Amino acid sequence: MYGLYDYLPSGNGYKVRLVLKQLGLGYELVELDIKNGASRTPEFLAKNPNGRIPLLEIPGRGYLAESHAIIGYLAEGSFLVPVDRYERAQMTAWLCFEQYNLEPNVATVRFWLHSLKKTPAELGERLEEKRRLGHDALAVLERGLTGRRFLVGDAYTLADIALYAYTHVAAEGGFSLEPYPAIRQWLRAVEEQPGYAPITAR
Amino acid sequence: MYGLYDYLPSGNGYKVRLVLKQLGLGYELVELDIKNGASRTPEFLAKNPNGRIPLLEIPGRGYLAESHAIIGYLAEGSFLVPVDRYERAQMTAWLCFEQYNLEPNVATVRFWLHSLKKTPAELGERLEEKRRLGHDALAVLERGLTGRRFLVGDAYTLADIALYAYTHVAAEGGFSLEPYPAIRQWLRAVEEQPGYAPITAR
Repeated sequence: MYGLYDYLPSGNGYKVRLVLKQLGLGYELVELDIKNGASRTPEFLAKNPNGRIPLLEIPGRGYLAESHAIIGYLAEGSFLVPVDRYERAQMTAWLCFEQYNLEPNVATVRFWLHSLKKTPAELGERLEEKRRLGHDALAVLERGLTGRRFLVGDAYTLADIALYAYTHVAAEGGFSLEPYPAIRQWLRAVEEQPGYAPITAR
Repeated sequence: MYGLYDYLPSGNGYKVRLVLKQLGLGYELVELDIKNGASRTPEFLAKNPNGRIPLLEIPGRGYLAESHAIIGYLAEGSFLVPVDRYERAQMTAWLCFEQYNLEPNVATVRFWLHSLKKTPAELGERLEEKRRLGHDALAVLERGLTGRRFLVGDAYTLADIALYAYTHVAAEGGFSLEPYPAIRQWLRAVEEQPGYAPITAR
C-alpha cells in the first residue's frame, strides 16, 4: 500500500488524496505538522531533501516528491489522463501554470493568512504583490475555462484536480471569485465528479 | 515544421531548443523581444493567454505553452525520457522542482540583473530573499547530484536539460557555483552530450 506524508489543509496534498480516492487506490496517511517544522527534520529530509509534503512512499521502489509528479505517476494510463498526445501536453501545461503562476500566489497568501494567522499589516507590500499576481493567474484560468466544461478536451483530467485544489479555497486567502463566473461554474462541475471528497478528508 | 516563439537568452526557451536539436527536429524560430512587451501584445495573447515564451506551434493542432509541457510533448517515447515508470516520475519531480524552487529565484535574479540591467541597490531586500532561496535550491540540486552522473537513473534525461538551462548561467545572476562541486561536474557532463548547443544558438 502507498504511504502518503501529508498535511490535510495542503492543496498540494489534496491533489494527491483526490487522485488516490478517484482511482480507488488505498494509502496510509502520515500527517506532518508542517507549521511546526515537521517536514524539515533530519529524518524527513533524508526522505525528501527539498523538505516538502506531499511525499509518496512507493513500496519496493522509494519516495516520490512533488504533487504533480505524484499524480502523474498514479494516474498514468487512467481516465484522468487524455489518450491524445496533444491533449496530454495541454494538461501538463496547465499543471505547470498552476505551480508557477497560481500556487505561489493564491496558495501562499492562503498559507500566510489562514494557516500561519499572519495579518495583512504584517505582510505589507509582499501581500499586495501576491494578490495582484494571484488575480492575474485567476484571470488566465477564467479565460481558459470560458465556454468549456473542463480545462482540456471535454473530459475531467488531472489539470482540473490540480487547479481546483487551491482555487476552491482562494477565499481563505482573501481572493474573491466573484469576478470569475466560468471558474465558479467549473468548481461545481469538479465537485459533481464521482469519488469527489473535500480538502481535509483523509 | 514546428514554430517556436522564443527569446534567445531565455533558459526556458533554451530547454526547448536543446531538445529540438538533440532529437533532430526542425523548427522555425520567431524571436520576440520580451523585454519590450512583445509577449504581451493582443496578437500574442491570443496564442498564449499567459503571455509567455517559449510557445510551440504544432502544425494541424495548435499552440502549446510552458517549457516543460513542450519538452515532454517533443521527447515522448525518445531516449530523453526513461522507460521505467518510477524513473519517469522522478524526472517529472525534478522538472517541478526546477519551476517552483530554482527558476523563480536563480532565473529571475539573472533576468533582473543581466537582461533588465537593474542594480542590486534598486532591488534591495527582494534580491536578498531570492538569493537565499536560489542557494537553497542549488543546495538541493547539489545533494541530488552527489555521487551520480545524471539526475535520474544513469542516463541523460529531460531533467538534466531543464535543470541545466538556468544553472549553467547562474553566475549571470551573481550566483557562484563554487560551493557546488557535483553541480560543476554535471554541467560538464551535460555539455559533452551529442547535439549539445549553447544557450543563444538558434
